[in-house]
Amino acid sequence: MIFLDAAATTPVRREVLEAMWPLLTGEFGNPSSHHSLGGAAATALAAARRTVANVLGCRPGEVTFTSGGTEADNLAVKGMALARQAADPALNRVVISAVEHPAVEESARYLERFHGFSVDVVPVDSTGRVTAEALSAVLGPETALVSIMYANNEVGTVQPIAELAALARERGVPFHTDAVQAAGWLPVDVKTLGVDALSISGHKLGAPKGCGVLFVRGRTRVEPLVHGGGQERGRRSGTENVAGAVGLATALALAHADQARLAERVTRLRDGFIAAVLDGVSGAVLTGHPVDRLPSVASFCFPGTSGESVLLELERQGVVCSSGSACAAGSDAPSPVLLALGIEAEVAQTAVRFSFDSSVTDADLDAAAVAVRAAVGSVRTLGVPGR
Amino acid sequence: MIFLDAAATTPVRREVLEAMWPLLTGEFGNPSSHHSLGGAAATALAAARRTVANVLGCRPGEVTFTSGGTEADNLAVKGMALARQAADPALNRVVISAVEHPAVEESARYLERFHGFSVDVVPVDSTGRVTAEALSAVLGPETALVSIMYANNEVGTVQPIAELAALARERGVPFHTDAVQAAGWLPVDVKTLGVDALSISGHKLGAPKGCGVLFVRGRTRVEPLVHGGGQERGRRSGTENVAGAVGLATALALAHADQARLAERVTRLRDGFIAAVLDGVSGAVLTGHPVDRLPSVASFCFPGTSGESVLLELERQGVVCSSGSACAAGSDAPSPVLLALGIEAEVAQTAVRFSFDSSVTDADLDAAAVAVRAAVGSVRTLGVPGR
Repeated sequence: MIFLDAAATTPVRREVLEAMWPLLTGEFGNPSSHHSLGGAAATALAAARRTVANVLGCRPGEVTFTSGGTEADNLAVKGMALARQAADPALNRVVISAVEHPAVEESARYLERFHGFSVDVVPVDSTGRVTAEALSAVLGPETALVSIMYANNEVGTVQPIAELAALARERGVPFHTDAVQAAGWLPVDVKTLGVDALSISGHKLGAPKGCGVLFVRGRTRVEPLVHGGGQERGRRSGTENVAGAVGLATALALAHADQARLAERVTRLRDGFIAAVLDGVSGAVLTGHPVDRLPSVASFCFPGTSGESVLLELERQGVVCSSGSACAAGSDAPSPVLLALGIEAEVAQTAVRFSFDSSVTDADLDAAAVAVRAAVGSVRTLGVPGR
Repeated sequence: MIFLDAAATTPVRREVLEAMWPLLTGEFGNPSSHHSLGGAAATALAAARRTVANVLGCRPGEVTFTSGGTEADNLAVKGMALARQAADPALNRVVISAVEHPAVEESARYLERFHGFSVDVVPVDSTGRVTAEALSAVLGPETALVSIMYANNEVGTVQPIAELAALARERGVPFHTDAVQAAGWLPVDVKTLGVDALSISGHKLGAPKGCGVLFVRGRTRVEPLVHGGGQERGRRSGTENVAGAVGLATALALAHADQARLAERVTRLRDGFIAAVLDGVSGAVLTGHPVDRLPSVASFCFPGTSGESVLLELERQGVVCSSGSACAAGSDAPSPVLLALGIEAEVAQTAVRFSFDSSVTDADLDAAAVAVRAAVGSVRTLGVPGR
């Protein structure tokens, strides 16, 4: 099997399992317990927090461990907007882009339904980019928060986060970015990016499912999403998933130690694969930005097919990939992200996304490109065989 | 080391790690992905859900996996109350007991601060019990939800949940119970209990930290806490912690297969330990209910000491336990639970809780009782040595 669905999830790295193992066996203490076993767990958690802070270029106290990227996005969008609204009731608008993950979009809609917020959606251009002009046009004196993703999960387009965050900062508006897909592939130094909050998911990086991180700058106020015992400096209650935090920290540090070299290598492979698919499949269209895109994502539409049929045929040939977001798999509706790029609904339903982890090889992608040509040809001539 | 702090957390059981291992290695798919790898993960998750449903006596669709007991409590209290208020704005009161875990209490306070709810706190008697009369007195036409814990984490008192839930049902009010400490020790059949929602935490049961369950009956409406991709039937978005869910299901099934026998064995050990401590330590007071208490919890106050000093001395002697809730460890304030039982603040600060897992032995508790006598004696005569 050639696994080209790493944007959905990744295998847990061996080094990550090794780092987690002691916390799943002998060192099982509760970090809040005031005895040696609790102390060992607290020490492991603190070390994981420092490791994450080193990668992000922030202080350990600015790192909150969560149960995943979705919770981190929820905590950022709801927590920061509610805290700002509580301090000043006039701050009742949030700005998101038209291509956000549902974790951000649905959090904004929750604020609308339950807390009287309005949601301003910044459009994207045909490559999926938010421009500074477009963001500037929706920022207003009532804007409590801007949340724009670093890199898109369906088409891989990378946003000019430093530029957009600087613009928000000029207007005095906090800026959150969902870096779930970007982490591991793009620099995530929060000072360089100039963001006030940034979300990461463990399982996109070679850590297990069930762990994430939210960076929140300095004294930024955040209303918690999960209330209780006051863990994570009161920002996220509940006994900490110590093994998960250690796993995430290990995976993030490994990815970023090698990030520049890895990004260069995989970008080269990606571009070869994109060229092979565009050459080999008549009518194939690359979606997203041609250059400013994740090293790890090659996304296409294949007009005259159905994406789901092409996926079935590809899997039959040993290539596993997806139509787009795993979170929306199975939905018949065309992807809102592709529609936001101006792609017609009929074409959007032919989308196929190939996403790579760091272990991807030339041979994998050569074989995959051959399979894509065959699969699209087969679906175009025969429909979906065997179904 | 004799570990008598199982109410804070438990070691992961070997069978649990073995059940989780495939999901942490080869079967790493995202359950939302529509390919074989995703399908295998979805199958494992569905099996875990059926296992939990079998133990709870409910349908699999009534089981929501969460990141832990605290999140389950938050989802129940906030989610059910907000959904009821959205359907009928007059429903703007929630009832909790005076001895709830902060996960429930702080969720209720959040409803108060952000959603215009009032919180009615039902008092407990000197054993920590909520009576039907006390609950009846606070139920009103505006009550959106009752949340009363099954067994207390600090003093082990078990509530008459079936009776209290029946009373709420008569009045048409949904009833949630935090069963985080009870699960594994007491029956958790939700039909027998008559509850509408019930929370469980994995790491109190021999599963890892970072996984929990919320049962919610049938078509009860729940506003999600974490919004996004719509996983868990829309009740809890975010890629599922498949390994954690499988671990929790395995641990819960193991504990409940043997629950009656285990409860009987550990109750006998507990009662021997309580008698030995009360005999051996002058002035020692058992806190909580003398009989209707968790098999696994023996809790005392030792007037004339400080709880923290006794803990230090006990750890020096190889016995690890706690002053009460790990979530409040390190706080100088006397336990609100003990104060709610009518214990004076000065006495409450001398609390020590011993809590057992299923592996506890007579020999452990004989040694612990000797250590307690020596530790209390030492603190009473010398203060805290070496500090």
